[in-house]
Amino acid sequence: MTFDRENLIQQVREQMTEHRFIHTLGVAQAAEALAKQYGADPKEADLAGILHDYCKFWERAKMAEIIQKEESIPSELLRYDKELWHAPVGAYIVERDLGVTNSMVLDAIRYHTSGRKNMTLLDKILWLADYIEPGRQFPGVEEIRELARRNLNEALAKALGNTLMFLVKQNKRIYPLTVEAYNGILAELQETR
Amino acid sequence: MTFDRENLIQQVREQMTEHRFIHTLGVAQAAEALAKQYGADPKEADLAGILHDYCKFWERAKMAEIIQKEESIPSELLRYDKELWHAPVGAYIVERDLGVTNSMVLDAIRYHTSGRKNMTLLDKILWLADYIEPGRQFPGVEEIRELARRNLNEALAKALGNTLMFLVKQNKRIYPLTVEAYNGILAELQETR
Repeated sequence: MTFDRENLIQQVREQMTEHRFIHTLGVAQAAEALAKQYGADPKEADLAGILHDYCKFWERAKMAEIIQKEESIPSELLRYDKELWHAPVGAYIVERDLGVTNSMVLDAIRYHTSGRKNMTLLDKILWLADYIEPGRQFPGVEEIRELARRNLNEALAKALGNTLMFLVKQNKRIYPLTVEAYNGILAELQETR
Repeated sequence: MTFDRENLIQQVREQMTEHRFIHTLGVAQAAEALAKQYGADPKEADLAGILHDYCKFWERAKMAEIIQKEESIPSELLRYDKELWHAPVGAYIVERDLGVTNSMVLDAIRYHTSGRKNMTLLDKILWLADYIEPGRQFPGVEEIRELARRNLNEALAKALGNTLMFLVKQNKRIYPLTVEAYNGILAELQETR
């Protein structure tokens, strides 16, 4: 990968609030560290972290239009929480506008909010980095950080479970991919026990 | 429906523990009451209640064999909690062995544990009756009983949400139909608000 990291970072910064930009740098840092720990490519993890929230603050209508137009993005997303939209829209846009073509990085961005059935190592790393980056402060995050030091899948299972319970408590619909991600990680854990 | 209710009840009683038989009568009673309240057929609700747990205590291997053999039962069930199995197996068996042909009743039995995407009124009534019958005692049941007196979908949404959270706390996989049931009820509630 031959991206000009500083240039990408500047482009990312222009898309979001300063608060979110600091979160983004935290995710890139956490993803790179997890990649080193669990044997993924640190450069890919860093790039996925930098770009994962590229469309987070884009207007609702603009994201909805892209979801409707692009056949590669499932339009059923429009029936679920708007918080899910920026991930597949972001993967589409960073490929189109920034020229990112690494499919592992694009997939990690695409599924960084929902998760998916068979998550790759990079998918898992970005999803978890987004959950535990140093700026995150919410009940239970320290437990996930602690798990992440020992076992990637155990940390993910717990964090995905927390996410499902959070959605139920908020009376929000649950995107089926998130349940598939959760079930998939539990299955992987059972196989390795 | 021209079933000999007493005869059916005797056949049901032979399939289960006395404790479960008392639960069964409670479900039939609760289902009949909900049917009267919400405009379903009380006789169908009573019949579904009597028969819903017909295979609850059948041997695991016997149920697994039926699930594998019968094309009408999705074999992916075998990868999920055994507690889900007796419902579709029961629907199959009460049709085959007891001659029940009412498809509404059979569907209510088939989906009384998992739920499904577009639950019928009778599906909802049996699912909820199973949750709140007078013998049930667990934290939160009284809140669901209270909701059931006022709004069927609100009671179901809360009870399905509780079920999802319970599964997560138990580190159990979540059967996709249960999430579809939950999402479907939330969508119905949104439409009527």
